Amino acid sequence: MTTVLELYQDQVKDQSEVTILGWVRSNRSSGKLGFLVMNDGTFFNNVQIVYKAEKLANFLAISSLRISSAIKVVGKFCVTPSAKQTFEIQASVIEILDDASEDYPLQKKEHSYEYLREIPHLRAKTNTFNAVFRIRSSSSFAIHEFFNKNNFIYVHTPIITGNDAEGAGESFIVTTRTDNNYNEDFFGKKASLTVSGQLHAEGFAQAFRNVYTFGPTFRAENSNTTRHAAEFWMIEPEISFIDLEENMTLIEKMIKHIIIYLFINNHYELDFLNNNVDDKLLERLKSVLNDEFAHLSYTKAIEILQKAVTKGQKFENPDIFWGMDLQTEHERYLCEIETKKPTFLFNYPKEIKAFYMKINDDNKTVAACDLLVPGIGELVGGSVRENDYDKIFSRCNELKIPTTDLQWYIDLRKYGYYKSAGFGLGFERFIMYVTGMTNIRDVIPFPRTPRNLLF
Amino acid sequence: MTTVLELYQDQVKDQSEVTILGWVRSNRSSGKLGFLVMNDGTFFNNVQIVYKAEKLANFLAISSLRISSAIKVVGKFCVTPSAKQTFEIQASVIEILDDASEDYPLQKKEHSYEYLREIPHLRAKTNTFNAVFRIRSSSSFAIHEFFNKNNFIYVHTPIITGNDAEGAGESFIVTTRTDNNYNEDFFGKKASLTVSGQLHAEGFAQAFRNVYTFGPTFRAENSNTTRHAAEFWMIEPEISFIDLEENMTLIEKMIKHIIIYLFINNHYELDFLNNNVDDKLLERLKSVLNDEFAHLSYTKAIEILQKAVTKGQKFENPDIFWGMDLQTEHERYLCEIETKKPTFLFNYPKEIKAFYMKINDDNKTVAACDLLVPGIGELVGGSVRENDYDKIFSRCNELKIPTTDLQWYIDLRKYGYYKSAGFGLGFERFIMYVTGMTNIRDVIPFPRTPRNLLF
Repeated sequence: MTTVLELYQDQVKDQSEVTILGWVRSNRSSGKLGFLVMNDGTFFNNVQIVYKAEKLANFLAISSLRISSAIKVVGKFCVTPSAKQTFEIQASVIEILDDASEDYPLQKKEHSYEYLREIPHLRAKTNTFNAVFRIRSSSSFAIHEFFNKNNFIYVHTPIITGNDAEGAGESFIVTTRTDNNYNEDFFGKKASLTVSGQLHAEGFAQAFRNVYTFGPTFRAENSNTTRHAAEFWMIEPEISFIDLEENMTLIEKMIKHIIIYLFINNHYELDFLNNNVDDKLLERLKSVLNDEFAHLSYTKAIEILQKAVTKGQKFENPDIFWGMDLQTEHERYLCEIETKKPTFLFNYPKEIKAFYMKINDDNKTVAACDLLVPGIGELVGGSVRENDYDKIFSRCNELKIPTTDLQWYIDLRKYGYYKSAGFGLGFERFIMYVTGMTNIRDVIPFPRTPRNLLF
Repeated sequence: MTTVLELYQDQVKDQSEVTILGWVRSNRSSGKLGFLVMNDGTFFNNVQIVYKAEKLANFLAISSLRISSAIKVVGKFCVTPSAKQTFEIQASVIEILDDASEDYPLQKKEHSYEYLREIPHLRAKTNTFNAVFRIRSSSSFAIHEFFNKNNFIYVHTPIITGNDAEGAGESFIVTTRTDNNYNEDFFGKKASLTVSGQLHAEGFAQAFRNVYTFGPTFRAENSNTTRHAAEFWMIEPEISFIDLEENMTLIEKMIKHIIIYLFINNHYELDFLNNNVDDKLLERLKSVLNDEFAHLSYTKAIEILQKAVTKGQKFENPDIFWGMDLQTEHERYLCEIETKKPTFLFNYPKEIKAFYMKINDDNKTVAACDLLVPGIGELVGGSVRENDYDKIFSRCNELKIPTTDLQWYIDLRKYGYYKSAGFGLGFERFIMYVTGMTNIRDVIPFPRTPRNLLF
């Protein structure tokens, strides 16, 4: 048995006989000659099979073979340097292993993404989704490889949690009951789905120095946008003994590592997406690799935006002032027009950032950094954590965050905490960035959004 | 800055000066000489620091330094071939970066596992849990590496699901409401936490041939045992075009790959666990590598167990008959006494297995395989899937499984499904097997069990 992967890896000699199992992607024949495109799942590209009435006893049956049928092909592997595809198989035998029904929902025509979202169990058989989910898989592996090489410990932080301080009001409840009597519930108290593994990861960074989580997180946010899903995956590294500058260096190294991995392992997929989905994709990804990321303080960013407004830049929200939370339009202006590359913003006003971030000496800003990228806006958010027990405790009080559930987390500061920093990368946003897909529903195998839970 | 990892990797020359940041693990001094054991999280082993009053101006402060304090040590790296540890650092400067409070819960004495379960955010700082969670991280990576090398696509199957056919009665409900009005809920219908990613993975195996999921799964089972947790991770590969024999070959290759990875990357941790937790651990893991796994049909296994009872073997459940569901005591007898190695049982009675398993030609058994391992019992469960639309449909009806929610899954059989097989490895059971830990609570960073949800 030969795989399509092996054919594309030049592991097969011209004119040798091969046997391939796979599924029909398209089929056309005229008179005594037929062309069948098949894919066996081992590689992104397809293989063209040429079949002839003079060779196949079952030529007629094969001529009317339906898309998605499983077949076994025995034939000659022929290099075709002058043709569009670099090789083809001249079939001597085609055996029908399992005939597809005629109601197969992916007949050979263009389907809208909306239509394909209704059949998430099948859409990976289309070229676009095949490419996207291959890139998703490769990106996952590249992330694990990056952290493994850099001596990080992978921690499975919990999915069900008793802390819902951070996600107040936006958490899903986990229960075995049909009322709200949580004292009698499975865990004997109210349980939620995690919104972040960071707090738990911080504890483990105190034991292993470098740790990361990579797992699903949840938001019960009723936002029907192209960028929000109720279930999504996050990568959250946490590193002891580092400061904001080293945190930004790590983010940049990680992003570049994944993109290099994709160029090496998924260039057919990237080419396809560049030709069919987003013609700026390759240019954008190459520019990420060839340049250092930009660094702008939040204060400087506000000055740039104010100047832009003065010069006539139109924002939906043109009221730019120090202390404001930037919108995606502002973030995109900064990295698309001003710096024209991935850009770190750092030292944000403490009022617009989370309670655990370290307050700088100016007592106005926190040691936080967001990475903004062209086409997307915010891709990564990170910070140095407040290491001072008293300061983080009083910050919780200021923000009216109940400290009872968080006492264990705050207590970490009592036991030689010293320094810790980390960040969160939203995995789906990253996949959108490296595929050119513009709806988060199209980069998740089975997306979950408000009033939408298929299968 | 030098890491402890670098010291153990022979990257530092004898007598050269090094600077290390880390945490105090123990500290003792007498008069003018002190010994401090520190760990910086980058490696399992500790480093001994020798400090002297004649060299340190702050000798008294260092003498009373508490466990878990963060320090910076500058000193001479000295190879000590005759001593217990192979090297030590002779300190010239010890700087206190962050003093630990005296109520640090891990003072230098033996703590029970029960006590440590109350402080899951800190227990990774003990040798045992440090070793266990390093091995957990390494095993995760080895699994991803194995499937990546073998051209599998990693699929993030959904955590929140609308299918609860399989886990009926043992699923957690996911809701944003405090009543049971699921029509008005976030997803507009009842939602649960997944009990398995297999059904979703099968769809993707039809596009990619080889896929796997590796993610959290959930059981709301009220079992307070050493082997059950409400939240645990599973590895579920699914492969098109293979049969039961190839499925068993893949399982064996995967298990051996992970154990080889651990021998290469975690031998200090394995040695420690062998010396302190389970003195059969190394012997057991080596024997797994050095031998082929055994294969026994279920029918043969029943004969062996019946013969054993006749010969005087005492089981809690001694009523052995064809059709019974084997208990852990029976599984352990088969692999510990009969074959003395990891053992596949295959071709189980259809009545005791799941609806989706392929019924063999005898119409009595299904093409299922379980891997039994000494000390644990069942570690892996796998099967060939029923590929015939009518058979799986009528099997659902026989078992009174509602097919409405499963129609998409059953429909896969209509579109050239041909053949598919796969298996599930319970990740925590595997970690118990390779660490010698006997309670599942001690191999999960933050374990979730009935009435237990810490942090």
